[in-house]
Amino acid sequence: MKHVLYGKCVKCGKTYDAVPDLTNCECGGILDIVYDYDYIRTRLTKEKLAARQDHTMWRYRELLPVEEDTPNTPLRVGWSPLYEEPRLAEQLGLKRLWVKDDGQNPTASLKDRASAMAVAKAREAGAKVIACSSTGNAASSLAGNAAAAGLKTYIFVPSRAPKGKVAQLMTFGATVISVQGSYEETFELSKQAIDRWGWYNRNAAINPYLSEGKKTVALEIMEQLSWQVPDYIAISVGDGCTIAGLWKGLKDLYAIGFIDRLPRLISAQAEGCCPINRAIAENKPWEPMEENTLADSIAVGVPRNADKALTAIRESDGIVVNVSDQEIMAAQQLLGRTCGVFGEPAGVTGAAGVKKLCEQGVIGKDDTVVSVVTGNGLKDVANAIKAAGEPISIPSDMDRLLVAFAEKGITVE
Amino acid sequence: MKHVLYGKCVKCGKTYDAVPDLTNCECGGILDIVYDYDYIRTRLTKEKLAARQDHTMWRYRELLPVEEDTPNTPLRVGWSPLYEEPRLAEQLGLKRLWVKDDGQNPTASLKDRASAMAVAKAREAGAKVIACSSTGNAASSLAGNAAAAGLKTYIFVPSRAPKGKVAQLMTFGATVISVQGSYEETFELSKQAIDRWGWYNRNAAINPYLSEGKKTVALEIMEQLSWQVPDYIAISVGDGCTIAGLWKGLKDLYAIGFIDRLPRLISAQAEGCCPINRAIAENKPWEPMEENTLADSIAVGVPRNADKALTAIRESDGIVVNVSDQEIMAAQQLLGRTCGVFGEPAGVTGAAGVKKLCEQGVIGKDDTVVSVVTGNGLKDVANAIKAAGEPISIPSDMDRLLVAFAEKGITVE
Repeated sequence: MKHVLYGKCVKCGKTYDAVPDLTNCECGGILDIVYDYDYIRTRLTKEKLAARQDHTMWRYRELLPVEEDTPNTPLRVGWSPLYEEPRLAEQLGLKRLWVKDDGQNPTASLKDRASAMAVAKAREAGAKVIACSSTGNAASSLAGNAAAAGLKTYIFVPSRAPKGKVAQLMTFGATVISVQGSYEETFELSKQAIDRWGWYNRNAAINPYLSEGKKTVALEIMEQLSWQVPDYIAISVGDGCTIAGLWKGLKDLYAIGFIDRLPRLISAQAEGCCPINRAIAENKPWEPMEENTLADSIAVGVPRNADKALTAIRESDGIVVNVSDQEIMAAQQLLGRTCGVFGEPAGVTGAAGVKKLCEQGVIGKDDTVVSVVTGNGLKDVANAIKAAGEPISIPSDMDRLLVAFAEKGITVE
Repeated sequence: MKHVLYGKCVKCGKTYDAVPDLTNCECGGILDIVYDYDYIRTRLTKEKLAARQDHTMWRYRELLPVEEDTPNTPLRVGWSPLYEEPRLAEQLGLKRLWVKDDGQNPTASLKDRASAMAVAKAREAGAKVIACSSTGNAASSLAGNAAAAGLKTYIFVPSRAPKGKVAQLMTFGATVISVQGSYEETFELSKQAIDRWGWYNRNAAINPYLSEGKKTVALEIMEQLSWQVPDYIAISVGDGCTIAGLWKGLKDLYAIGFIDRLPRLISAQAEGCCPINRAIAENKPWEPMEENTLADSIAVGVPRNADKALTAIRESDGIVVNVSDQEIMAAQQLLGRTCGVFGEPAGVTGAAGVKKLCEQGVIGKDDTVVSVVTGNGLKDVANAIKAAGEPISIPSDMDRLLVAFAEKGITVE
């Protein structure tokens, strides 16, 4: 990879050759992939990109840590829609607002970007098997993207994992090991098995390439905005890998001269689980927290990518905002009704944060904002049911319908 | 609309001006939209299409029954991925096989194509409200596409409608009326309400524009195949509107000279509810059937678009194939494991039909086939759970993992 220099530890600065199965630094720190931007500038122009017919994350190959001859992964990951939402902008009092619906990925979450990258790197490594431990979107995206590429997956989930997610994994042909114990115990068994059998490791805590996949969401946002930089990009934060990837993509574009300034990040977490935002707000090292939120995909009390995430928020002069579960579910309704976008609770937490910051007057009528929805509401129908309320229930009788409308105060147009 | 001649009754041949709120013929027959293909030939070329950056169904405007100044609908409907599946083709013994994953639409089904069309026509009609009766994908796609366009929706569902689907509707801000009674009673109340308040009617039994939206799936397949016609296109059939739309799109392309022959359609229905296929097989008029299948989206015992569907299958020299629920769920697993595509039961019924026809030797090693997946498996997690089986369940202990693998006959690579 001529355009990649090395992997560099975000803690101690030690560098490593960017081999396909690169893991953490010997000091325990997570690695960051470092590029030769001068070289990339000679290979990629805006015009070249604009002419490309490939509308997936792989249109940005010059900025991705893969060999030239590594095949694109089969599923159509990325190039999710970016919707401008003038009515919602007006409601919130913003100058302009866009919603990036990353729930429109093949397995219905942004995690497909990381898993497609894992599949590409596993192929480079000559691996036939990929493994991870996860209860949610990382697992299903890995299972789906690997199945399409003809790779086997072993996925370790804690026994509390929702049945629906396990069913999705098994439909994709993963060998699913349900571990009777906590997530930590699940992770531990997966680690032993990965060490024993030498499976390729798809784990954002270990694998530095995953956030390189995730950064494509930033590349797309900027290309879809014709390289006009918004004031803010808002996203939900759990483990920290996603916001780190978002920031990496933006910095890449700045480094190669595709954008002339950087937006500020809005890091939205759930009130009941916000170790990263708390560290920023109190300007202290992060500390573990309990996981008290219904937004399961960001209920991460011990974030593994906290270092990268904290750096991203600080470098961008970012804003942190915590929202209650009630505010999250209100945002789900708001996006559904106003934009026709159905996000899972964790997926709409960024939007909930934007709404709150508007109400607090932190951002407002002079600001332009992109809000990323990270996962599809169909992933978690149970919570949507709770939030959506009950329909009108009547017999098939017009008089009863009129009464019901009157009782509900519905004026029919 | 210079390119549209009129609406023509498929039963009696009477023609009607193509006004935006066109409904059925006075004889009760459904109308077909008839185009001026000579005019369209002067406006649309393959080169013009290839240069278009709009990757939604609206890239085919010259072939769609909308005014030139009618705005595109907001959600990104269409241009779903067409995956070539060489491994599955080999397994089934086919020459080539592609899977068109229409579950990758905004509300996760092919119905988005019809609902986006309904929204466009409602705007032309100056309507602010759209209504329909449905329990499933038609309802959620209408609610989502209308919400994004700022239109109100009234949606009538029978009280047996699954809670999850109702929650999706309510999240999109629809006014949902749950009718304590059968689907027929639900339909009846919706009809009375639509008549009373003059709402725009999104109902495939009434509105001739909907299958024009659906036909874009055929336009895309052919463009994605670089206009190389496959031998067969397989799709699941319920009401009949979808296969009729598919055929219409193919005939449009043939009429304007974009393709030089027509593929044969494969109409796949559930054994427990196959009135259309039975009519073809027995060469008799169709008769109502019970609705005994778990593939809820195609459990249509009284298809409203049977006439158009029967014509499509016959004109194409099509093949009909009925599959059991077990075969449907096996196809769900097969597509998941081999292609990384997760379809709902009705969505994979076409693929189940392809598999069966291969096993019967009706199609085989000389044939090229496109199989359309019409809806996402996340729409119906309950059935996926039943089909997927149980994961390995053990404590966090390597010895127990080894025993479990041995018991299951899993040889770890």
